[in-house]
Order: sequence, then C-alpha cells, then structure tokens
Amino acid sequence: MRTLARGSSSVRAAPRLAIASAAPVARRGFASTSIMADAKFRSEKDTFGPLQVPADRYWGAQTQRSLQNFDIGGPQERMPAPLIEAFGVLKRAAATVNKQFGLDAKVADAICQAADEVIAGKLHSHFPLVVFQTGSGTQTNMNVNEVISNRAIEILGGELGSKKPVHPNDHVNMSQSSNDTFPTAMHVASVTEITRSLLPALEELRVALDAKRAEFDDIIKIGRTHLQDATPLTLGQEFSGYVKQVENGIERVKAVIPRLSMLAQGGTAVGTGLNTYKGFDVAVAKEISNITGLHFETAPNKFEALAAHDAIVEASGALNTVAVSFMKIANDIRYLGSGPRCGLGELSLPENEPGSSIMPGKVNPTQCEALTMVAAQVMGNNTTISVAGSYGQFELNVFKPVLIKNLLQSIRLLADGARSFTKNCVVGIEANRDTIKKILNESLMLATILNSHLGYDNVAAAAKKAHKEGTKLVDATVELGFLTREEFEKIVRPEFMLGPDDYPKKK
Amino acid sequence: MRTLARGSSSVRAAPRLAIASAAPVARRGFASTSIMADAKFRSEKDTFGPLQVPADRYWGAQTQRSLQNFDIGGPQERMPAPLIEAFGVLKRAAATVNKQFGLDAKVADAICQAADEVIAGKLHSHFPLVVFQTGSGTQTNMNVNEVISNRAIEILGGELGSKKPVHPNDHVNMSQSSNDTFPTAMHVASVTEITRSLLPALEELRVALDAKRAEFDDIIKIGRTHLQDATPLTLGQEFSGYVKQVENGIERVKAVIPRLSMLAQGGTAVGTGLNTYKGFDVAVAKEISNITGLHFETAPNKFEALAAHDAIVEASGALNTVAVSFMKIANDIRYLGSGPRCGLGELSLPENEPGSSIMPGKVNPTQCEALTMVAAQVMGNNTTISVAGSYGQFELNVFKPVLIKNLLQSIRLLADGARSFTKNCVVGIEANRDTIKKILNESLMLATILNSHLGYDNVAAAAKKAHKEGTKLVDATVELGFLTREEFEKIVRPEFMLGPDDYPKKK
Amino acid sequence: MRTLARGSSSVRAAPRLAIASAAPVARRGFASTSIMADAKFRSEKDTFGPLQVPADRYWGAQTQRSLQNFDIGGPQERMPAPLIEAFGVLKRAAATVNKQFGLDAKVADAICQAADEVIAGKLHSHFPLVVFQTGSGTQTNMNVNEVISNRAIEILGGELGSKKPVHPNDHVNMSQSSNDTFPTAMHVASVTEITRSLLPALEELRVALDAKRAEFDDIIKIGRTHLQDATPLTLGQEFSGYVKQVENGIERVKAVIPRLSMLAQGGTAVGTGLNTYKGFDVAVAKEISNITGLHFETAPNKFEALAAHDAIVEASGALNTVAVSFMKIANDIRYLGSGPRCGLGELSLPENEPGSSIMPGKVNPTQCEALTMVAAQVMGNNTTISVAGSYGQFELNVFKPVLIKNLLQSIRLLADGARSFTKNCVVGIEANRDTIKKILNESLMLATILNSHLGYDNVAAAAKKAHKEGTKLVDATVELGFLTREEFEKIVRPEFMLGPDDYPKKK
Amino acid sequence: MRTLARGSSSVRAAPRLAIASAAPVARRGFASTSIMADAKFRSEKDTFGPLQVPADRYWGAQTQRSLQNFDIGGPQERMPAPLIEAFGVLKRAAATVNKQFGLDAKVADAICQAADEVIAGKLHSHFPLVVFQTGSGTQTNMNVNEVISNRAIEILGGELGSKKPVHPNDHVNMSQSSNDTFPTAMHVASVTEITRSLLPALEELRVALDAKRAEFDDIIKIGRTHLQDATPLTLGQEFSGYVKQVENGIERVKAVIPRLSMLAQGGTAVGTGLNTYKGFDVAVAKEISNITGLHFETAPNKFEALAAHDAIVEASGALNTVAVSFMKIANDIRYLGSGPRCGLGELSLPENEPGSSIMPGKVNPTQCEALTMVAAQVMGNNTTISVAGSYGQFELNVFKPVLIKNLLQSIRLLADGARSFTKNCVVGIEANRDTIKKILNESLMLATILNSHLGYDNVAAAAKKAHKEGTKLVDATVELGFLTREEFEKIVRPEFMLGPDDYPKKK
Repeated sequence: MRTLARGSSSVRAAPRLAIASAAPVARRGFASTSIMADAKFRSEKDTFGPLQVPADRYWGAQTQRSLQNFDIGGPQERMPAPLIEAFGVLKRAAATVNKQFGLDAKVADAICQAADEVIAGKLHSHFPLVVFQTGSGTQTNMNVNEVISNRAIEILGGELGSKKPVHPNDHVNMSQSSNDTFPTAMHVASVTEITRSLLPALEELRVALDAKRAEFDDIIKIGRTHLQDATPLTLGQEFSGYVKQVENGIERVKAVIPRLSMLAQGGTAVGTGLNTYKGFDVAVAKEISNITGLHFETAPNKFEALAAHDAIVEASGALNTVAVSFMKIANDIRYLGSGPRCGLGELSLPENEPGSSIMPGKVNPTQCEALTMVAAQVMGNNTTISVAGSYGQFELNVFKPVLIKNLLQSIRLLADGARSFTKNCVVGIEANRDTIKKILNESLMLATILNSHLGYDNVAAAAKKAHKEGTKLVDATVELGFLTREEFEKIVRPEFMLGPDDYPKKK
Repeated sequence: MRTLARGSSSVRAAPRLAIASAAPVARRGFASTSIMADAKFRSEKDTFGPLQVPADRYWGAQTQRSLQNFDIGGPQERMPAPLIEAFGVLKRAAATVNKQFGLDAKVADAICQAADEVIAGKLHSHFPLVVFQTGSGTQTNMNVNEVISNRAIEILGGELGSKKPVHPNDHVNMSQSSNDTFPTAMHVASVTEITRSLLPALEELRVALDAKRAEFDDIIKIGRTHLQDATPLTLGQEFSGYVKQVENGIERVKAVIPRLSMLAQGGTAVGTGLNTYKGFDVAVAKEISNITGLHFETAPNKFEALAAHDAIVEASGALNTVAVSFMKIANDIRYLGSGPRCGLGELSLPENEPGSSIMPGKVNPTQCEALTMVAAQVMGNNTTISVAGSYGQFELNVFKPVLIKNLLQSIRLLADGARSFTKNCVVGIEANRDTIKKILNESLMLATILNSHLGYDNVAAAAKKAHKEGTKLVDATVELGFLTREEFEKIVRPEFMLGPDDYPKKK
Repeated sequence: MRTLARGSSSVRAAPRLAIASAAPVARRGFASTSIMADAKFRSEKDTFGPLQVPADRYWGAQTQRSLQNFDIGGPQERMPAPLIEAFGVLKRAAATVNKQFGLDAKVADAICQAADEVIAGKLHSHFPLVVFQTGSGTQTNMNVNEVISNRAIEILGGELGSKKPVHPNDHVNMSQSSNDTFPTAMHVASVTEITRSLLPALEELRVALDAKRAEFDDIIKIGRTHLQDATPLTLGQEFSGYVKQVENGIERVKAVIPRLSMLAQGGTAVGTGLNTYKGFDVAVAKEISNITGLHFETAPNKFEALAAHDAIVEASGALNTVAVSFMKIANDIRYLGSGPRCGLGELSLPENEPGSSIMPGKVNPTQCEALTMVAAQVMGNNTTISVAGSYGQFELNVFKPVLIKNLLQSIRLLADGARSFTKNCVVGIEANRDTIKKILNESLMLATILNSHLGYDNVAAAAKKAHKEGTKLVDATVELGFLTREEFEKIVRPEFMLGPDDYPKKK
Repeated sequence: MRTLARGSSSVRAAPRLAIASAAPVARRGFASTSIMADAKFRSEKDTFGPLQVPADRYWGAQTQRSLQNFDIGGPQERMPAPLIEAFGVLKRAAATVNKQFGLDAKVADAICQAADEVIAGKLHSHFPLVVFQTGSGTQTNMNVNEVISNRAIEILGGELGSKKPVHPNDHVNMSQSSNDTFPTAMHVASVTEITRSLLPALEELRVALDAKRAEFDDIIKIGRTHLQDATPLTLGQEFSGYVKQVENGIERVKAVIPRLSMLAQGGTAVGTGLNTYKGFDVAVAKEISNITGLHFETAPNKFEALAAHDAIVEASGALNTVAVSFMKIANDIRYLGSGPRCGLGELSLPENEPGSSIMPGKVNPTQCEALTMVAAQVMGNNTTISVAGSYGQFELNVFKPVLIKNLLQSIRLLADGARSFTKNCVVGIEANRDTIKKILNESLMLATILNSHLGYDNVAAAAKKAHKEGTKLVDATVELGFLTREEFEKIVRPEFMLGPDDYPKKK
C-alpha cells in the first residue's frame, strides 16, 4: 500500500496519482488479470464487498466492478473527457449548494478542490470506464464520486478507500442520484462544447468562406445545374451560397441551446426530487452557470428530463444538418478543384502533402475528404442518437452514455473538421481565372441572351449548329448570317446575366 | 377529339375534365400502352415533337413524356397533393405579380382561376407524375404549367394543346424556372402542412395528455427506473413528462418555420434571378403570404436556396425528434396498459376493436402500435432526407422530389397519427387505481423513507428479509422488532415521497 | 340492400363488386361520413356489434372499424398490392390443406376461387386499409378473410354479411392467426417480388452495362482518383466495375432468399401452433410453393418467426447495398456525362426529354437523378426497417405492416428504377471518343511510364515544367532535352499502362 | 539524436522505441507544439521537404505531416488496431512475394521481421494517425511504410530516416499503392475480427441461450402478444426463439465473408495493376491466407474493389441485423426480469453490482442496457457506412478510413457485448417458477381451450364475468354452473396448449 499524504501540511496538496504514471492499458481493457499482475493494489469496498483496485488510482470499488463487468470496446470507448469535466462542474456546484443545506464546510471545500482538478482535466487517467456500461451512467457517476472522494480525503489527510471524512455517496453525491446527475452532465458538456468549440469553429469557417466570396466576386463562371452547363454566375455568388449554409448552421446550432440548457439536477431518482430540498435544483443550475460562465436553468419538468432525451435528439438533428451542409460544400470544392488537366479545374486547392510520388501537380483534396468523412460519421451518429433516444422506459432512459458519447463526438468532429478545413483548405483556395474564363466562353448556353434579339428558333439553330460541329457559338451565329462578330460580342456578355433586370428594361 | 368548351359564354366555366371520370389506373403506371388502348387522345407537343395524351386530361407533352420515361413505383409514388396545391398557390401569385410586369391581364386572370382549382384540389387527377423523375422536379413544374395553361385556355375558350392564348412556358411559367419554383412549392407546402395540420394535431394531443395529467394527479404509483421498482411518483407526474415532451415538440417544430418560410422564388435557373425583374422575388413572397395567410419571405440568398435543402433537413430533424417522443410515450402507455392479468395493468386503454375472438378482456394497444409505426417511418424518412440533402451539386440539388415527398409524408403521418392516438386512445385512458395501489404497497422500495428513523443497516435487513421471504415490508419490520405496525404505517407513506423536502425539515 | 347473386346457376360467377365501380376516395380517407353519404350500405357485424359498410364492397365489420379508427395517411398509405396478393396465395393454400383436415370441400373450393381473384388483383379496391393500423396486421388479415368470405358466399349464392356458408374466421382463417398469416404473407410477397421483379431487372441492368463494357473496351481514358487525374484505364474497365457491382448485388439479394423463404404459418397466436394440426405447417408451405412456383419451407422455429423479423431486416440490408451501388454507378455516369462544354464530357447520355427550352445540347441526366433518388429512399427505408425490426416484444413484433411496406417499396423502386435506368439511359450511352482522347493526351500523369527511362527526378522536372507553363508533357520533355519527340511518342503510350507487366519484363 | 542499434550483432534486435515510453498525448492531438516542446526530434523528409519527428518514434515525414494537417478528433479517433495489424500482414505478404519479383532478400526479410512486430501489436504507439485524414487512407499506408522501413533499417543497422537500405516507398510499398493496400487491409482486418472475435462470441451466446432453453423447457408460462396476455408457451420455447435469432445471426455474418475475402491487392492506383507483375495479386492473396490461416482470394475485378466498398456495406447490413436481434433479446430479458415486486418478475437476472444503496433487491439489468446501447451504436454505424459507401467517385471511394473504423467498431462492440452479456447475464438467469405459475393461472385466456366443450358464448360469458369481477376463471365457470371445479381442472390445463393437435384428435 502506498504511503498516503497524511502528514501533508497543506490542504492544497498536489495530486499524488498523476496522469503521467498511467499504467499501460492492454487492448482488451482493464479487466484481464494479467495487466494488473505487476501493479500494486489497495482494497476498496462497496455493498457487494471488498475489491482490489490499483494503488495509484483514486477510483473505488464500484468503478473497479464496472471495469470487470463491462469489458466492452476497450480504451477507445471510454467516456468522453468533456462529460467527465462537466461532472466536475456539477459536483463542485452541488457541494457549494449543499453547504447551504448542511454539508460540512471543510468537506465541501475539499470536494470543490478535487472537482476543480477534474474540471481541469488533471485526473483523466482515473476515469477508465467505457460507454457501454449501465445505461443510466450510474457507474460513471460513482467513478466521479469515488475519485473526488478519495482525492478530497487525500487533500484532508485521510486514508484512501476509508470513505472518511469524505464519503462518495453521502457527501460527493449528496442530494443527487445518477439519474439526475448524468443527464445534467450531458447537458452541461453539450452546451459547453457547442459554445466553446463548435460555434467558434463554424464562425471561423464562415468568415474564411466569406473572404473568398469577396475575393471571387468579380469572377464570372459557368453555372451548373444537373451537372450540366447553365447560365453564368460569379464565383463569389457561388461561394455566397456556402457562406449562407454555414451562417444558417450557426443559427441552427444556437437554436437548440435553450432546451439543452435545461438541467435535470434536482429530480433525483425518478424526477420527484425526493431527498433534495426545495430550491436545491434552482441553486445548482445557478451555480453551474457561475462556474461555466454559460446560462443554465433548472428543467421545468424533471420527469421529462430523466425519462426522455429529446433535447439531445434535437441537437443531433441540428448537427446532422450542419454535416449535410459540409457534405455539399466540400463536394463542390473538390469537384471545382478537380484536375489538374482532366477535371473542372476552376479552383486550385492548397497542396498540403504529397499527393503522389510520381504525378506532379496531383493535389488531392484531402481536407475535403476528411470533412466529408466527418459528415458521414455525424449522419450515422444521428441515427444512433435517434434510436437510443426513442427507447426511454417509464421514469428513465437508459441509453444515456451512448447518447452523449455520440453527441459529443459529433460536436467535436464538426468543430475540429471545420477548423482543419478552414485553415488547411479554404483560406488557401485560389481561383484559376483563365480556366474559368475559357470554359465560360465555350459554353453554348450564353445563347440564352440572344433570344430577345433573334427569336428562339434562330438562336436554337445557331446553338445546335455549334453543338453539332463542336465550334463556338459566335462562329455559328456569324456563319448563319444572324449577326456580325462585333454585334455578337456586344450583346453576348455574361456580365449581363448575373441578376434580375430593371423593369421596364433600360435600353 | 373531344368537343372543347369553345362556345362557353362564361369564363368561369366548370372544369370539364372532372376527377370523377378518372380512368382506372393499372398497377404498372400510365406508361403501358394497353391501358391507353381504349381511351381517346389528343396531340400535344414540346420541343421533342408531338405526343398523344389522354383527351380527358389537361396535361401536355412534357407530362406525358415523363409518364413514359419514369415508370417507377406507380400511383403510390405520385407527387404529394400538398405540393401540387402549393404549386397552385405559387402560379397564382406569380401571375398576379406578373401582371405588374407586363403579363396580359386576361391571361393572368385565367391563370389565377385555373390555379385556384389546383389549390382547391379539383384537378388532382391531372397530376399523374411520380416522385422518381428528374431531380429538379422540372416535369412536375411543367405538369402544373401544362394543366393550368390548358385549363386557362379552356376558360378563355381556346383549344387544348394549342398553347394559345395561354402558353405553359411563356405565361404560366413567366419569370420562373423549375429550379426556383419547385423549392418554393416545397417550402410553401411544408409550412402550410405544419401550420394547418401538424401543429394543431400536436396541440390536441398535448391538451388531451394534460387533461389526463390533471385527472391522475392524486394517484400515487410505483416509479420504475431500469424497469425496476423505484421510488413512487403520481401518475399525474408521470403524464406531465409526456405533456412536456409534446409541448417541446411543438416548440421544436415551430422553431424550424423561420427558415422554411424563406422562398427561392426569383432565383430562376441558377440563383442569379436572370429573366426576372427586380422586386419580383419580394412581390411573389408577399403575394404567397396573402394567398395562404401565412408568413413567407424571399430567401436572402437564392444560391443556397436552390443548391442546398438544409431547411428541409433541419425540419426533418425536428419531426424526427417528435417521432422519438411519440415512441417513448406510446411505449410507456402500452406497457402500463399491459395485461389484463399478466402485465403491469396500471392503465386501461380504450377497446376500439376486437382484440381476439376468443379472449375476452384482450384489448390490444393498437393506437400505440400505429403511432410507433409512424415514428419508425419518420425516423427512416429522416435518413432519406439527410442523404438526399447531402447530395447537392454546384447550383442545384437534384433530390428535390424525394426530399419533399418524405418530409410531407412525415408531417402528415405525425399529424394523423397524433390525432388518431388522441381521439382513439388518450382521451379514453383510465387508471386502474386498485391495481396501482396494490402494486405500490407491495414495493420494498418504500423502505427508503425509514433510513432516517432506523438507520440504513436495519432498514436493509428488513427489506432483504421481506424480499427473501416474499412478504410485506411492514411484516418484516414488525417481526424484526424495529417498529410496531402502527408506527410503520405512520411513517411509511408514499405521499411523503413525491417531492423535495423543506429545509430545514419541518417536524 | 343490393340484390345478391343468389340465383346464380354457376359457382364461377364473375365478381359483382367490380373494381371499376370504385367510389371516389377523398383525401382524408374513408372514415369521413360525407363520403359515405351518397353510397348505399349494408350491415355487417363483429363481436363489437353491427356496422354499416358500403354495399358495393366485400369487406366486413372489422375492416370498416379499422377504416374509422385509423385515419392515418390516406390512400397513399394503403397496404401494398403484393402483400394482398400474397394473402390470396396463403388463403388458397390454407383452404386446400384444410380440406385434408376437415374443411367442407364446397366451402374450400369457393374460398380458393375467391382467393384466386385476390391473387389476380381483381379485388384490389376491396382492400382499403392503411399500413398504420394494428401492428400485427390483424385488420388486414381480417380484411382478407372478410372479402374472401363474402365473395365466396356470393359464389355459393349466399347473402353478403351473413357469414354463411363461409365464415371469415371459422373457414377462411381456419387453423390460422393474424400472428402467423401476416408474417407468412410478408415473406411470400417479398420472395415473389424479389424473384419476379427485382432480380430480372438487375440482370437486365447487368447485361446492358456489360454490353457497354464490351463496346468501350478499346477506349483508353484518364483514370481519376480523389477526383484528380491518375493513370489511365479503358472505359470498358471502368464499366466492368459497374458490372461487377450489379453482379454482386444480384448475389447479395439471392443470398437473403433462403431465410425469407421460411414461413411462419402454423405458429398461430404465439408460435406454439395451438389450434392447428400436426403437419399443417409443412403442408401449407408446400402448397404455397405449388401455387407460386417458388420454393418455400415452414420455419424451423415459429417463435422467432412471429416475434422477430430479422429476415426482413437482413433483406433490407441487401437492398441497401444495391442502393449504395446504384448511387455510385449513377453518380459516375452523370459526372462523366457532364457538359456539354464545361464538364467532363466523356459520355453522351440519351436525351429523353427537353432539358431546357432555351439551351440546346442541355441533356439532363434525369434517369441518373431518378435512380439516385430511389437509392436515397431505399437507404432511409433501411433505417425504418431496422428501427421497426428492433422493437419486437415477447411473442410478437408489432411493426409488421410498416416493415413490409418499406421492404416492398424498396424492392419495387429498385426494380423499376433499374429497368427505367437500363432502358432509358444505359443502352443509349455513347462514348465521346474524341473528348476522351483529347483529355487523356493532356494529362501529365502519363509521365509515370518515363520513370524507368529517365529517372524520377528528370521526369518530375519535365512534368512540373509542363504543369507550370500549361504546356504538354511532350513539349516540356523535348524542350528539356531529355528525349526527342519521336522517342517520347514511342514510349509514352497509355496502352502500355492498362495492366500488370510480365516478369521479368519483356523488352 | 538517440544512438541507433547500428552495432547490433543480431538482426533480430528488439524494438528500441518501445510502447512503454509513449509520450503522454494531450487531448488536442499531436499537432500542438507545446506537446512536442520537451521531446527530442530527428529530421525526416518527403517530397515536400524535411520535418522534425519525435526521436523515439519510427514514423517519418508523411505521418508527421498528417498529424499536423488533420488535428481532428484526437487519440480517440485513431485508426483501429486491427487495421494496423492487417497492414502488417499485408506488408509481410507483399515482401515475401516481392522476393520472387526481384526484391533483395535481406531487405525483404527485415521488412517481414518488422511487419511481424506490427502484427503482434508491439508498435501500436507508432501509429498515431486519425481516421479523419485523406479518404484513401494514404497517410496510414505511408505510416506503415515509414514505421516498417525505419524499424527494418534499425534491424539492419542503418540510420533512422535515411531510407537506406529499406525505402518506405520503393521497398515496403513495392508493387503497391495506397489505393489497393488500404482496401486489402480493410478486408483482412474485417474477416479476421469476424472470424476470431465475433463468430466465437456469437457462438458462446447461442450455446448459453440454448442451455437456458433446455433448462426452462418444462416451465409453462403466459404468452404475450401486443404486450397482452395470450395463450401459453414454455419458457424454453420462448428462449428457443432467441437461440434461433443468434443462430441466424451467425449464418448472416458468415454469409458476407465470401465477398469480404476478395482482396483488392494488385489493382494499384486505379485497378489496372500498373506497376505490378502478372501473378502478383494471386500470390499476395495466397500469402495472406498463409499468414492468417484464413481464406482469401484476389478480387476478380479490381476496379470495383477500389472504387466501391459494397462488401463493407453488405457486411454492415449483417451486423445491423445482429444488432436488431440483440435489441429484441435484451429487451425481452429485461422486461421479463422487471420487478422485483412491481414488474413481470418471471426471471431473475444476476446481480453484478449494487443497483442502489437503499433499495435491496433492486437488480438493474445493466448487461441488457450495455448490449442495447451496443445495438444502437451498430445501427447508427450502419447509416454512416451506407452514406460513406454511396460516395465512391470514378476509380476510388475516398471514405475508406471512416468505413473501416465503423465496421471494426461494430464488430468489436457486438463481440465484446455478446461475451459480456453471456458471461455476466445469460448464464446466471434464473426462472422464478412460482411467479410464472401464479401469473399463468390468473390468466383468463386459458378459457380458449373450453371453447370446444362449452361453446364460445358460454366461455365468453365466464371469462367476462371473471374479468369484470376480478376473480379466477375457474370460480366464474363454476359459479355459472357450466362445470364443476374438478371438471374444469381436468380440462383447463396449459400443458395441452403448447403445440398442434393430432388429426384426427385423439380422445
């Protein structure tokens, strides 16, 4: 058994079980005894009896039991860090409020200190549990309670595993239940990640696309509908559509925050609030707002907040829409950048890495590829979330971990993907003005503007002639004797085709 | 060739090609010649040449060509009626505005009259095209143009198919393109169906559930988490969760309307608005608002409005969330109503039809079943819509018909499903008070409240004894000498377990 | 009350309530009384009492009750025709077998005759029920029982609604339960539609693509990876990939038939087979095989066959894979056909309808668009089917109607879509040999083959020079003095780049 | 710079850059400079120039570049280990075959030795790349090439980063392209994980369920359809349905192996096999079979194998079906185990961890919860895979990493989930025989068997009386004078209701 920091003169002792000493984790998870063989252990216990836990970890018996009972997916499937951090926020808030409802101040303060370390990510290696555990996330709530309890015990000079003077249930989990803490942490983590990570990333992308829109505003290019040549527009106009998609995406994501900001805390086991005090729910929500600097409120109906996770499903729907937008934007950009010789070639995308060791000029649109893979992942996560969200039963939905894991993954991938795409692709996009102009001038569809001069039938004849013979529209028109070359060039100008007319038409 | 209404003295002539005379439609669609064999035809033409169309139908050559080229899915897959009606609204609005931009008033008025018949659903049998056609919906736009043109021609005493004096392209489609009309009709139809059908149906359901909540407010029942017995709540509290879910659903659906209210009209072929006049877009949106009595605006960016359908994807996300809510509510209700002898039996659901010819008392929760099937359909439609929405290319998304078909189906199924569930199930739900009470009293989890009187260990001992012996908690407690029966009954009262305590606790 | 065919001298009387007289169906379904107002009615009854049904319809009270209780979705959502026809097959088979187990031969024969009319689709207008009804499909089973009973009564000269001499339950449904008939009909319909419709359509597509593969076998073209120019291949090789996809699709669909061929019939209410006789299940499966000419077997485990619909989910997975293949193939073809001037322009797709009234040469890839919309629909249906399939409870899955509706829709859309795409697109695809050649020759990536002659560095220098200056590879190589034009043209030949080398290399 | 193992006398030197020394990985990935600040570096280069890489890692410049350019998702999103191991298999096989086609034997052997370490998982910490990179997985292919090259260089006493005597491209990647190696590794990893992990886990589950089926074969219980009481069956019969579902699942998964066993290797960049030798493809497939002990073949069409991943989509469809089965089985079991007092209570599930600190007897069905969360994840992964699979373009599908990541996750979660569920739940399930019997005897639906004795009307009367009065069926029947208690008990015996009758009925 390790020597504990009993004699520490300072309550503010540094954590002794540092992340740096994290034992190597075998692929098949913590459960196999071989991994534990050379580690040192201490005994922890829960109502099922005593259990050996690694001596250099703060977790207790319930965490250890979960590790052994849920050997599903391994380290890749651990609870996401933002959720653990949100639990830190919640436990800090609860301890602060509980002081007003009778919790010993010294205990409360130590809980707050330990919770701060959780919030700061200092204790991540002490949260080994996977998503595929009990569907209420009880074991992760207990993991948090145990880690904070033991760390607070350490701070206060007690013995790890003694549950004194800070008990994981009686003190860290005071007035709480897994059934209200887990959904609270879900919402706090979601709002935090959306606000701190996703929205700024979307805004960066919007700004970068808008800068390109401005840069490309004078470049007239062929329009394409059904992939076929159509009437022209500017490259700036084309990009303005992308800007609008991202702008709408920002609005969509913001629109789900109000319902995500409602916190289940105070509902305890079934939504009634049994074992809490009047006002606890409101106070905790307020305290969480204080800690995070973000607005949260207590949920007006705790039964809904425990038994359904419609707010998560709704949020995923917004993320799914952003993913769909990304798919469109990234696809367009890579098609417009296709080539260099045998594609559309209107854009040049930044060359970030070797595309091929033998083909110079082969720039693969790798950032577009990463972003569209992100989009596919988010679209599938939306199905997972919808299925999981549909399966609530009576007073509890027991798909909580898989719901939040998928939502947080979607948020992070969209945020990281947007940032990477912005930085490594969008800002470096260049328009190939010559190619764009050349293609445009070959288009037969500029004939459209001649309709009012020559009549539809004559125009059609000229266009069909050019199409059949593979010549230019001007040549066919002149050859047919409809116009001189000068007349043609005076009329057929793409820049007249970029917007609505005045009425009545100006001469 | 049928005799046309040339000599009609009244412009307001009734439609001659009435729905009642609709020819029987064979399963494999209109395309097979055998079906046409005994019908009479007239000749219509487009730029590809002349084509025979049924003499008793208003459609023209392009519609007929689509029928022949897209024999996919048959009548079950026709364009949804609300979309056709929205096209009627749009064509009326465009004609009205076009009068200000040079369209002959007599022609405009005839178009308006014909469009009114489309809006009123009088001409449904003249819209035979299926969803799986060109992805821009061009052929349906032309179907509308052709039907309105021919009907307007008829009103004005012209000859069907002559395109005079009302030309399908030049007049009915004036200043428009399929690429802006179809998305406009998509949005008009969506907003209309949501507002007129879905939101009222959700509100009915909310009201009915809330009435039950009030009715059940004094019924204390066992709570269930993880499907296992938990602390009690009232049946009213349980239903309040459902009320909140539906209430939130209403908010969610309302939240997508702003972006659905943006209309693409005025973007024409690629979003630039070529071939329209300045102000046309705003005027059409305003006129559509006038006609429908609903608020619409012109889309601030027409490129986005043609090339992406994120607003449809977003709306589907909201409907998906409502579906997920329905799944939870309907599942709970059917489980609570399970029995009559061997299930939970807390609720009695209305008996609407024979459940079985031999088992009296077998009431199948058929309305729950229909509603959950609706939910599954809507959840799948959300995938279809997401995939389709992701596939926009350059200036156009060419999955428009499948997008709107799925969205309108989701809207209608949710609306009809909610109404049916409300009327045929919710309003008739009865609580089985005796069963609920009996079950509750057998629960061991009421022991929870004894913790502060006897200490956790004693309570656990009593509860475990009762669990092991299959006896009541009171018996075990008394037998163990912890309390008298009177004391027990004074303390262990579920009604004390329905909410948070005062702090400090009142004696 | 209509005069019945009592005095008919022939048992083989024609159906009196012909499809041609089908009353117009209002949009909101049959339930509204206004529709019924001017129709004539007769009284039918079930255990809930008497009910008015339209006099010209064979259905009875339970069907009518369902119409009234499930006003969800309207006629568009009716049970698919192939399912009703499969029910006809099943009822015929059951009657045939029941003759051996005591059913009166005259009754059995009349049932068979009526069932034949159901199979032939003559009675479709008598099956008005929607998918969103009871989740066991009980009401559709009763609809079939009622229609066959009344039609058989008519054949035998009895009185409609009298249930004599052919009772819907006692005779038509003899030894059956909705719980085993509905899944049986699901499987019979699925296998039939797959075998008769989908597989031939896929084979047609495979053959058509393979013909193009052969036709294009000598056309060398640029390869594209990441959308960027890559080493060359033949257009035939490219099409061979599509052929293989479709060929695999055929295998995939065939691979699910064994489990779809297992029939639940004989399981009755919960899978035990209560109320049937030993051997009934095997005999019915055999008789169904006789009728359909397709192989069916009785399911080895009836509990699984009623409570789960994994075979439907599995089948949908195969259809989903076909949809994914279609998406790839149709996307490639429309991109390769993009243009005519500003796209890739390697293929010309058949022009089936006007693409635009003003832009000659604008051929929209509308068949590709229809097929990709089909694919999106099938992909979404797969989600619906997966969700619905996951929700079985104890002895019954009550999402049967929505499962089969989506599966049959997927089958039909893929079949129709494949046929339409084959006929209206694939067979008419032409290669633009000049364009393909021109593009290929401009590609810098042909440099690859020079590596072994000049060394990588020199080749890279030449390629980079050409890329930078926008010139041809040959010019750059010659200009740099690496090779003469003749030497270059002797070595750099795409036809050497179409396959693996011999080893050791032949000179 | 670290001292390299130049002087090593043994080619079989142990890896010097051991996993145990893996630097701590910050949450935001490797890219941030702060992480690198205190590490030592060496210089590596690619065609873009030199780059600093961590001195204690074998990877080279292209890996490092990817780390910096794709900071998306962090360590949680790394390429799955089985894929890396499959790459090891592939590189070993290629080196072995390349020896026959001119690769220096010493170089080949060193590659094989390094590849063996990759296969054995000894070098996992050298594969830091995330899934969201280039869509061809090129960077992971290069990561493997670089690591094997440097490790082989080390084995041969060379200098890390020198590319001598083992060049990552020329030697490790000889005759290969990312475009054929990545899909090959996808298939090898999938087949391996399915065969080694999933199928045995499914078989364990099947065996465990079948043991319970046998154990429960004599326990007659109430059947439930629509959640309502129905005719009885044995608990063994009920479990036999689950057994069949798993058995079918095994068949389904096996059925996809043939197409997963087809390897793309030999197609190189676009499918033609340029830069390989005739016979290379077949030889590599054979060698991979040798190494893995599993059957693989070269894909008959390499164009399909690179450009589409239909085999992955198909496999996911099978996994999705297994997930759907799991959802049904786990849901049933947790509902049957619901209680202990207020649920169905027919089963007792093993108590693996404290369900609640205050409610004795509260056993939460946590293994069911984990398994259903797994199912939801797999169902969503199926959407991701379908979307990603649909997006192939021309000669390449560039969603490869996200495809394989989701497929391998689905395989592993199903395997681990099945094992955990088997071991921690299924084997410990106990039937509550008393409860089952008590519930059964209260059921009114046993009345069914009286129909042939008393006639339907009398039976109905008795059943309705019992239902109304809440009494037992026997009491009502006796009270109504239909039968004596003895007669009733002789006839109404559930054991007569468990299967079909003999015909003709035996007396």
